[in-house]
Amino acid sequence: MKKLFILMIISLAITIQGQAISPDSLKYINASNFEIINKGFTDTENLYDRLPANLNGKTRPPVWSLSKNCSGLAIRFRTNSSVIAARWEVTGDVTMNHFTPTGIKGLDLYCLKNGKWQFVNSGRPAGKKTTAIIIDHMLGKDSEYMLYLPLYDGLVNLEIGVIPTATIDNPILNSPRKEKPVVFYGTSITQGGCASRAGMSYPNQLSRMLDRQIVNLGFSGNGQLDLEIAEAMAGIDASCFVIDCLPNVSVKQMNEKYADFLKIIRTKRPDVPILLVETILFPHRNFDQSIYALLQEKNSTLIKIFNDQKSTGDRKIFYQKADQLIGTDGEGTVDGVHLTDLGFLRMSEKLYPVISKLIKSNN
Amino acid sequence: MKKLFILMIISLAITIQGQAISPDSLKYINASNFEIINKGFTDTENLYDRLPANLNGKTRPPVWSLSKNCSGLAIRFRTNSSVIAARWEVTGDVTMNHFTPTGIKGLDLYCLKNGKWQFVNSGRPAGKKTTAIIIDHMLGKDSEYMLYLPLYDGLVNLEIGVIPTATIDNPILNSPRKEKPVVFYGTSITQGGCASRAGMSYPNQLSRMLDRQIVNLGFSGNGQLDLEIAEAMAGIDASCFVIDCLPNVSVKQMNEKYADFLKIIRTKRPDVPILLVETILFPHRNFDQSIYALLQEKNSTLIKIFNDQKSTGDRKIFYQKADQLIGTDGEGTVDGVHLTDLGFLRMSEKLYPVISKLIKSNN
Repeated sequence: MKKLFILMIISLAITIQGQAISPDSLKYINASNFEIINKGFTDTENLYDRLPANLNGKTRPPVWSLSKNCSGLAIRFRTNSSVIAARWEVTGDVTMNHFTPTGIKGLDLYCLKNGKWQFVNSGRPAGKKTTAIIIDHMLGKDSEYMLYLPLYDGLVNLEIGVIPTATIDNPILNSPRKEKPVVFYGTSITQGGCASRAGMSYPNQLSRMLDRQIVNLGFSGNGQLDLEIAEAMAGIDASCFVIDCLPNVSVKQMNEKYADFLKIIRTKRPDVPILLVETILFPHRNFDQSIYALLQEKNSTLIKIFNDQKSTGDRKIFYQKADQLIGTDGEGTVDGVHLTDLGFLRMSEKLYPVISKLIKSNN
Repeated sequence: MKKLFILMIISLAITIQGQAISPDSLKYINASNFEIINKGFTDTENLYDRLPANLNGKTRPPVWSLSKNCSGLAIRFRTNSSVIAARWEVTGDVTMNHFTPTGIKGLDLYCLKNGKWQFVNSGRPAGKKTTAIIIDHMLGKDSEYMLYLPLYDGLVNLEIGVIPTATIDNPILNSPRKEKPVVFYGTSITQGGCASRAGMSYPNQLSRMLDRQIVNLGFSGNGQLDLEIAEAMAGIDASCFVIDCLPNVSVKQMNEKYADFLKIIRTKRPDVPILLVETILFPHRNFDQSIYALLQEKNSTLIKIFNDQKSTGDRKIFYQKADQLIGTDGEGTVDGVHLTDLGFLRMSEKLYPVISKLIKSNN
């Protein structure tokens, strides 16, 4: 079995690489020296956390634990190195049967080229600790980079490797723009399950499309309208809030907590657009009658909540129907529920014009 | 670490499922009782193999070993069960860091609905042996199904589970049509690396689009123009041959073997269309100068080989340029090389009209 595994690894390696540089010949700089983006809170326990330290013990343990996953966070830097590598250690070495390890706990490098963020390559994880060349044989021109961190694991440590004679420093350009980020609250899907690599989660794709930082508060299985999360969100000077948590809440929870969740945000942010998103229409609903009925019920409950909120005089509350959010061919998921890069691209393309307009209305 | 893993599994499970049936309460029927499709050869060592038994010892060991992976094979059946489950054991329990276990060794169920194959749900693997409910709460209407087998692992055994009172039998409808299949020869990408689930590899997508069986002879890392494979391919009464192996061969190998490979097919199949496919343009070629030069060199070598073949009087040889095969945004791969569901959909949509036309010319 082990032999076959090794054979597969070797045989899957496409035999096209040029002479590769040894990762040991590079110099490594701790990523904490560079700008970290898409982070909603500065007062975190650890650098790569997603919730403020004061929520430890206040929010439910699974939410707290998931806030240690780095989804959405990215390191911004520039370098003239012809090689970029990374050395990183994850906290959990998580594995899941419908998710690539590269998406769960790998890295994903983009470069700003002609004003657009272009995929460079991913850092594929070897286990708890990895050293990997991400890209080699570049021209060595000074360029701006963005390195997305793991979607479903935490980081103990991260270092970026470049050739010893290269310069590496903080970015010059403000892209994705950091002022007034968009804040997403939601589920495993929001957290990025199951993108093949970090850059393909829909919040990360939208961040590039909108040229705007996006704070990812997706908590796998636990986007359950916890009110202390609404309070934390309200503390962010956001351009827009997107609430996309329906797959994780029961209709009972929606009726009990959704209005309060909105009220808490509105206390501090009365005029910031809030977009309520219906649950996506899981493709297997066309076969599973129980799922079909549940999705219908949740989305009609959301319309009611939206209308109630509007009737309080809220003129900055908006509604996103699920229609076609992930396409209509049923092919956008790995398991009926969690989106692949295909589903995430479709969702991003549908949400882009909507959120773009909401941000503008709040500029 | 183990604790966190279990937590992640639990928390990723979306809390929307209705009361699920126990897999133990179902009856299981060995899949060998039903039609197996997309198989190029009947004289195989084991039911789920992709090469004829007489190539054991004749073809290189890695090719032989990879021929035991089930990529492309599917089971066709019909049932009126409201639940469909599966029990299966894989040969290798393969894992790879850029590939979902569901794609590597899971199952993928489609149903023929209004004349089109629709995704039902995937069977997510638990390890070497799995029992899993694939879909529940269906209406229990007699329907035609197709269950795709693992892309990158072999099968020791597979049983399909239905409710004890349900009927399950061979299909009535001939879809995807079995007469004159299309035969694909190629690489890890052809074999389906790295689709999130089996139905999303480009040969499997094309099979649904074309409503035609497709024989998958993709051998990860080993699509190296082995001449005995050309002989085996020539034995198939194909509607079209697609040769998409460039990522696995050096320019030297192309010059030494490509013409002979074509000659062997032409000896037995003088009039069957053969489509030569350029190597896809790996997105990281925009950064890695060495890859860029190599792709250019391989594709210009292929043009020469194509022209040489044409000049022998071959009027059924065709050429597929790589332009836009996987899109132009650089987002179609997990690692610069292997396609995600997004890249595979784009490639299928580009190849569909081309192959469709070639098949018609040979009907």
